[in-house]
Amino acid sequence: MKADVPDFAKHGGLLPAIAQDVHTGLVLMLAWMNAEALAETLATGRAVYFSRRRGKLWRKGEESGHIQKVVDVRIDCDADAILLRVEQIGAACHEGFTSCFFRSLSANGQLSLIMDRIVDPASVYHSPNHLT
Amino acid sequence: MKADVPDFAKHGGLLPAIAQDVHTGLVLMLAWMNAEALAETLATGRAVYFSRRRGKLWRKGEESGHIQKVVDVRIDCDADAILLRVEQIGAACHEGFTSCFFRSLSANGQLSLIMDRIVDPASVYHSPNHLT
Repeated sequence: MKADVPDFAKHGGLLPAIAQDVHTGLVLMLAWMNAEALAETLATGRAVYFSRRRGKLWRKGEESGHIQKVVDVRIDCDADAILLRVEQIGAACHEGFTSCFFRSLSANGQLSLIMDRIVDPASVYHSPNHLT
Repeated sequence: MKADVPDFAKHGGLLPAIAQDVHTGLVLMLAWMNAEALAETLATGRAVYFSRRRGKLWRKGEESGHIQKVVDVRIDCDADAILLRVEQIGAACHEGFTSCFFRSLSANGQLSLIMDRIVDPASVYHSPNHLT
């Protein structure tokens, strides 16, 4: 890979990565990647992020089974944001929703639930470490 | 707005904000918001970001005319990422492409152009300050 694309040097080694469902177009989540996470994602075809909370690589679905098969990786104009178009197995969100963006924010600051929970988190996570 | 939603305190006052075309589902861009940018976005129905390069609010389209009419604002599970579903006027990207994510990255690190440029940047920007 060219050292300057994407440009991990710009922002402390971590770039935002968006996952989008390739079939429905739904934006599933936003996570973070370092160079190693992107390299493993490209090599394996499975989404791998860097967990800021845990300070290590996060192989999406490693505990829940809710992996993301990567169809396409896109880079933005400034080479500092990444878009993964994926086939999502199960729920993208650790809260059990298809997408992490399951709430809408109104002009007056009220949050509304706009999706149904499709998975009971207790049924797929066996440790308290599933939060990113 | 509740002070803790979204949680701008978490990450130095700036959160990543994704803009998605509400009609086509295309992910258009990723930019950044501070609390003031989000408040103005909610109040005006036009996407307003915070330009890290310029260090000030960036009213999307203020120079190019390529505004984003905000249909819906969504917040993720951790309240630290924002999704705007928008009606995009013109090109979202300052390079003249519909989306900033106009390049695909292959497993061997090669970038490919996957969209046509729809606007000549020189025709809409009259200063060198249009880069975010």
